[in-house]
Amino acid sequence: MKINIMTIFPNMFDDFKRESLIGKAINRGILEINIYNIRDYSKDAHKSVDDEVYGGGNGMLMMAQPIYDCYKAIMDGKSGINTYYMSPKGKKFDQDLAIEMSKEEEINILCGHYEGVDERVLTLISAKELSIGDYVLTGGEIPAMVVIDSISRFVKGVLSNDESTSEESFRNNLLEYPQWTRPYEYEGLKVPDILLSGDHKKVRDFNLEKAIEVTKKNRPDLYEKYLKELGG
Amino acid sequence: MKINIMTIFPNMFDDFKRESLIGKAINRGILEINIYNIRDYSKDAHKSVDDEVYGGGNGMLMMAQPIYDCYKAIMDGKSGINTYYMSPKGKKFDQDLAIEMSKEEEINILCGHYEGVDERVLTLISAKELSIGDYVLTGGEIPAMVVIDSISRFVKGVLSNDESTSEESFRNNLLEYPQWTRPYEYEGLKVPDILLSGDHKKVRDFNLEKAIEVTKKNRPDLYEKYLKELGG
Repeated sequence: MKINIMTIFPNMFDDFKRESLIGKAINRGILEINIYNIRDYSKDAHKSVDDEVYGGGNGMLMMAQPIYDCYKAIMDGKSGINTYYMSPKGKKFDQDLAIEMSKEEEINILCGHYEGVDERVLTLISAKELSIGDYVLTGGEIPAMVVIDSISRFVKGVLSNDESTSEESFRNNLLEYPQWTRPYEYEGLKVPDILLSGDHKKVRDFNLEKAIEVTKKNRPDLYEKYLKELGG
Repeated sequence: MKINIMTIFPNMFDDFKRESLIGKAINRGILEINIYNIRDYSKDAHKSVDDEVYGGGNGMLMMAQPIYDCYKAIMDGKSGINTYYMSPKGKKFDQDLAIEMSKEEEINILCGHYEGVDERVLTLISAKELSIGDYVLTGGEIPAMVVIDSISRFVKGVLSNDESTSEESFRNNLLEYPQWTRPYEYEGLKVPDILLSGDHKKVRDFNLEKAIEVTKKNRPDLYEKYLKELGG
């Protein structure tokens, strides 16, 4: 899978591309992440990328020209590639969308900054606006990392064999159950004995019960969805 | 504000601490971010931090001991400091929580990895579990950056005077309206003339109308909340 990122802070992705899961997937040739510096495409004498907002709003807005020219350089005659724009006013990114996006061969991600980008460039590049949650951030770079990390886990070969996406949160609208590792006793606290019983059915029932418990407590909205789909 | 991060990937924060808003706030002495490497606290001969899951689950789990000892080293007799654990099974992080957390003088953030952490350590450090969205990531490092970026914007002195948090998404359950900057015409597309009229009332009405439009389209759930609070 190939991911092209348009940003004015290209260095923010250095560590991200080196560390952990993403670094390994890049080294194994499963993932390709190309960083494009929007500033390189500015036709302004001072390489500006932003200007004031029409109508008197606060702060600065990213101009259309450097972004559109950067986009055209990436596309270079190619077509059928989705371009996502990280923005709090987008549609919500979630686990289902991560799975869907992981099937695309190549995607572009535009990272905004300051107050956002000129609305016209979103039209010109047919951007799909994506929001990672109900909060506002300084720029789209960290959200882009969220999206890339999340979708990469579903790209074949990225996770190793002993890792798995089948028993984790948001499957069947339940959060993941709590888990324990060695030692059996730590600071006076013991691992629930049922997990040592070797009785797979009992372990499964226990885990389901705990998953329901934590979902009910932390995410009543998800728990309602779980009940609804169970009933339907 | 002082933020202590517990992680097994300390290098992932290098760029984050240098670039953009966060780098400036650190340089001005408004923000202090301390990175603690959990591995340094492992009492294991091989400095291990993870072990297999009880009950036969997939993957590895982070052990309680290195995390708890790291936590105790940070706290060093201090009290009244909240510790947050980044996890998809936590409560949802949102703009209201960002504003609330920005008032704390010092916080700890625990970044998990692999399948998560031993449940007992969350009890021992009284962790508040926080989720940044309905998707699963490889580790808590990027989510920690999301939280830090988001709350920093509300710490006095972090945003400059011409930046503002008053007109952005999630105020009054509306997303932000689209915006335009120079030039007036680009690729045949013009800025809406009303924004050049100088009539503040008309501009405000236009922006509100556009904010309602985008919220209705991208976030019907938020739009319903907006209508409800308008009616109540």
